[in-house]
Amino acid sequence: MDIASVIGLIGGVLLIVISIAIAPGASFQAFIDYPSVIMVVGGAIAAVMIAMPLKDVLKLFGVAKKVILNKQDDVSKLIGQIVSLAETARRDGLLALENRLQEITDPFIILGVQMAVDGTRPEVMEDILRTEMDAVAARHQSGKLILDQIGKFAPAFGMIGTLVGLIIMLGNMSDPNAIGPGMAVALLTTLYGAIVANLVAIPMAEKLGFLSRQEQIRMEIAVRGIMAIQAGENPRVIEQKLRTFLPPKQRKQGDGAKAA
Amino acid sequence: MDIASVIGLIGGVLLIVISIAIAPGASFQAFIDYPSVIMVVGGAIAAVMIAMPLKDVLKLFGVAKKVILNKQDDVSKLIGQIVSLAETARRDGLLALENRLQEITDPFIILGVQMAVDGTRPEVMEDILRTEMDAVAARHQSGKLILDQIGKFAPAFGMIGTLVGLIIMLGNMSDPNAIGPGMAVALLTTLYGAIVANLVAIPMAEKLGFLSRQEQIRMEIAVRGIMAIQAGENPRVIEQKLRTFLPPKQRKQGDGAKAA
Amino acid sequence: MDIASVIGLIGGVLLIVISIAIAPGASFQAFIDYPSVIMVVGGAIAAVMIAMPLKDVLKLFGVAKKVILNKQDDVSKLIGQIVSLAETARRDGLLALENRLQEITDPFIILGVQMAVDGTRPEVMEDILRTEMDAVAARHQSGKLILDQIGKFAPAFGMIGTLVGLIIMLGNMSDPNAIGPGMAVALLTTLYGAIVANLVAIPMAEKLGFLSRQEQIRMEIAVRGIMAIQAGENPRVIEQKLRTFLPPKQRKQGDGAKAA
Amino acid sequence: MDIASVIGLIGGVLLIVISIAIAPGASFQAFIDYPSVIMVVGGAIAAVMIAMPLKDVLKLFGVAKKVILNKQDDVSKLIGQIVSLAETARRDGLLALENRLQEITDPFIILGVQMAVDGTRPEVMEDILRTEMDAVAARHQSGKLILDQIGKFAPAFGMIGTLVGLIIMLGNMSDPNAIGPGMAVALLTTLYGAIVANLVAIPMAEKLGFLSRQEQIRMEIAVRGIMAIQAGENPRVIEQKLRTFLPPKQRKQGDGAKAA
Amino acid sequence: MDIASVIGLIGGVLLIVISIAIAPGASFQAFIDYPSVIMVVGGAIAAVMIAMPLKDVLKLFGVAKKVILNKQDDVSKLIGQIVSLAETARRDGLLALENRLQEITDPFIILGVQMAVDGTRPEVMEDILRTEMDAVAARHQSGKLILDQIGKFAPAFGMIGTLVGLIIMLGNMSDPNAIGPGMAVALLTTLYGAIVANLVAIPMAEKLGFLSRQEQIRMEIAVRGIMAIQAGENPRVIEQKLRTFLPPKQRKQGDGAKAA
Repeated sequence: MDIASVIGLIGGVLLIVISIAIAPGASFQAFIDYPSVIMVVGGAIAAVMIAMPLKDVLKLFGVAKKVILNKQDDVSKLIGQIVSLAETARRDGLLALENRLQEITDPFIILGVQMAVDGTRPEVMEDILRTEMDAVAARHQSGKLILDQIGKFAPAFGMIGTLVGLIIMLGNMSDPNAIGPGMAVALLTTLYGAIVANLVAIPMAEKLGFLSRQEQIRMEIAVRGIMAIQAGENPRVIEQKLRTFLPPKQRKQGDGAKAA
Repeated sequence: MDIASVIGLIGGVLLIVISIAIAPGASFQAFIDYPSVIMVVGGAIAAVMIAMPLKDVLKLFGVAKKVILNKQDDVSKLIGQIVSLAETARRDGLLALENRLQEITDPFIILGVQMAVDGTRPEVMEDILRTEMDAVAARHQSGKLILDQIGKFAPAFGMIGTLVGLIIMLGNMSDPNAIGPGMAVALLTTLYGAIVANLVAIPMAEKLGFLSRQEQIRMEIAVRGIMAIQAGENPRVIEQKLRTFLPPKQRKQGDGAKAA
Repeated sequence: MDIASVIGLIGGVLLIVISIAIAPGASFQAFIDYPSVIMVVGGAIAAVMIAMPLKDVLKLFGVAKKVILNKQDDVSKLIGQIVSLAETARRDGLLALENRLQEITDPFIILGVQMAVDGTRPEVMEDILRTEMDAVAARHQSGKLILDQIGKFAPAFGMIGTLVGLIIMLGNMSDPNAIGPGMAVALLTTLYGAIVANLVAIPMAEKLGFLSRQEQIRMEIAVRGIMAIQAGENPRVIEQKLRTFLPPKQRKQGDGAKAA
Repeated sequence: MDIASVIGLIGGVLLIVISIAIAPGASFQAFIDYPSVIMVVGGAIAAVMIAMPLKDVLKLFGVAKKVILNKQDDVSKLIGQIVSLAETARRDGLLALENRLQEITDPFIILGVQMAVDGTRPEVMEDILRTEMDAVAARHQSGKLILDQIGKFAPAFGMIGTLVGLIIMLGNMSDPNAIGPGMAVALLTTLYGAIVANLVAIPMAEKLGFLSRQEQIRMEIAVRGIMAIQAGENPRVIEQKLRTFLPPKQRKQGDGAKAA
Repeated sequence: MDIASVIGLIGGVLLIVISIAIAPGASFQAFIDYPSVIMVVGGAIAAVMIAMPLKDVLKLFGVAKKVILNKQDDVSKLIGQIVSLAETARRDGLLALENRLQEITDPFIILGVQMAVDGTRPEVMEDILRTEMDAVAARHQSGKLILDQIGKFAPAFGMIGTLVGLIIMLGNMSDPNAIGPGMAVALLTTLYGAIVANLVAIPMAEKLGFLSRQEQIRMEIAVRGIMAIQAGENPRVIEQKLRTFLPPKQRKQGDGAKAA
């Protein structure tokens, strides 16, 4: 579970709740108005349903779950696995990799190694692996887009709700005492829109972008590693190449490219 | 018919109508002002007529219809069709594809297969098919652009209308009771502009962008498939390559690149 | 003449004029304030004079005229002309094109055909024609940029004018009756800036962008056609290639790439 | 001197000064508030000092001077010079260019011709010249960036100043007569920020961008010319190629690529 | 230490403090409200925790320290070092560079020279060095992104705080004397958000971008230099190529590419 996302989300909500609680003269009722909630959330969902294919909209909860539940994989473990495969291939030939397929869990690496074992031509292999990378990126992208759209349409319907509230209030100014509360209610939709956008949709869309780039880097490492294994490159050179993707602290330096 | 777009559009309008209906002291008359409607819609259309070629502006209703009526084609059916054509070509030669032309409905695939049958050189074929792809993308793009422009100019003329209303109101402040209603009317154009932009123009432009990208992916699959058929590639390899465009759930994994 | 631009421009102005005329209690005098006009238009021109080379600023009227007077050329006529030249070249040799030079009006095609007749090497020819395309695009771009800048600076000086008006008004609040009219005058510059930007500068800049892209497509067609003529390609293949630039309705389908 | 920039700058300031002078009830004192000036200008400079390397910030005045003092070089004179050098090289050999070095003033052309005379390999020559072009573009870019930043931070500190003023005013509402003037003063920083950004920083940044692109075009012409001289190309072909960079009116047409 | 950043930061804060101190009727208490500080800073951090990987968020202080403490390296010293290595390699062979490794401090240059000494193939060397450059750029980029996000979310939570304050105030308008101070407090979060964004987060993000580009240029110079050394190029040609990265004043001209 991505503990930071959970803390951020709960913390952000608590901040707003507490700031209302400690404000003199404030009451929570003044901040809860169901028609306003429906206007902002419903309006944003209506706009997103027009804007995006239905099957993408339905993935909304899966997408949110992915942000909350993601766990960050260890890149250096991935590199270790590829180097270990390279050593097997160097020692016993490419076909020996077939016996190691069952210990791999990532279907992308299984696909690559299987093709190497099958003797697929390198250019066909790289073509298939890179098309797969693009396809994964496109699927992540469409998930990010739903959240981007909500982050754009929630404040827009917040403004629409406030305009509706203001027009109603301005048409009934006979009672001056009602002006203040009327405007307070009108502003609620703008507040809801700002919270939905800035505490939920936009940050989650950003996180999805990160997860997607991270996945692309993992797949890039896998592609380069598998292609190098297929080309029969020295496991030490493969390791050195792939380790450049790690931040310097995680990298052991000095065991340079002795043999190339 | 794209049921999600219709639900989104009707749902969004209902949301606003109901939120007015349930608000205490609100009347629908206060929200209907024909001059304001004409200002926002007319102004946006006037600006779009200056901004875009007339023949593109006239496509506006066709473009809106396309968003409402689009049906999402099945990519895996397309791949099946191409693989089936590849099998025919592998078994009976490229010329045998001529007999299967009448069962194809997509004019783009017909064009490609016809050229393959005619023995057009591969580089000429790919050049013609890719130029066609670019031309389709450009036509979609100009449809999207009309909606983008309306989504930009409708709020702008909403603001112009509100400014006109405010200036009239501020010049006649002798009767304090008229200030509220005057401002309410002035705000109507801003409200209309926001609704036209955020519930109609911008979401429809987004959807058109999606439909266009989807069409480009279908055409990309078709081009790669036809070029592979023409090159006499193995139907199984073709299928594996094209299946990478599918989301993982729709893909059968494991029947790897046995022969390449 | 680009009748749509003229209708859009006149229609947009009429919309605003009529909406003022029918508003109860409104007078045209309240909307006309010469110092405000000078502030917005003069300020935008001052900023543009700093922002752009003088010779580009002086082209402003020529640029506006171009938007109003443009006529859309027929792409299929251009393709017909190139195919006809290709037939002559195929039948009688490249030198025979010299006799047909006088019937061509587009100086860009004349340049290309003349080079083909002169036996200029293909790579030199394409280099010269593409440099010319880039140069035309750059000249169009700088015309579009003036209008873009006016569309940016007119609202900015509208805001500056309104701030100046507000500061004057706020400093003289002794007479409460003067507050309304003072604010009305202050808002006029914002109104003018919004109209200049959204009814004139931004839409015209968009149209210029369209005209420029259209011209680039025509030149692209001409370059591909001339290079194909020079390479002695089959006129039917040339026609098929170039027709992909046309929308499907204008294209005759079926007469495929018989000979390639 | 770039007379248009000077006229624009003085004209823009005069516009604002005169519009205040002719407004009934306005006084210049109401528009001058030194703390507000220091807030906007000082705040923008403080932010820019954090945002950019100190040595770039110190170039601010040199950058402003460059916008004011630039003179537009004649591209056709540059082309004439290169063609003349090409004729010398064609007639008397590349080494003969050494005698003409002292008549060249542009250090970039001297560098290129010197390398041609020295017999530097073409790929090394082009590499060095293009690296130099990139370096010049990067230096111009950092000059433009300072102005861009000021155009961004001046309005931001204008808003900060207005917020500070509003908060002070709202805390002291005991005297209703002080509200108007207090708000007037608060708005001054927003006004200053808008003027600094829209009359000085943004237009000057745009002009610098133009000057930089112009310089890049001159250098591109020089690189292509020098590489063509080095390759021993025909001076007429060189002239024709380089003339495509000129607008059509300045170009003599018809003397086509006779020999290539 | 980057003295300009420190002066900018302290100067900007002082500007605001002094402008409050000298304003008649202002008190510092009116500008300090701890719940508002917590709303803006806490809200921005909560959003950033959702938006970015936790390990990147935790680097926030390291990133800020880097902006404050950076010292600008001397590019010409780097070029001198590379030229000196090139002379050693030219005179005594590539292996002689091993003795000079201990005098180099930059681990990137050590890596490159070590590979050259080890006889790594040039394409492998360049591949490893460029992957390392990309990895460094990506790490810098993620540091810049945290500050970018804070610069985006701090004003957003400033607006949310102001909306909360306004809604509370509008619901309690029984005491007219409380309206002014209530609004003053509500505006504080907007002020805090604007200061955090425009005086801290956005300028620091810009500076990080500069430092990153500078580092990339240094690494580009190092890569080109090391590859040229490995290819056995003339030290004078290497020097001339690398010196084009320097601004003209720092460059000695005239000692051209005598031998290539």
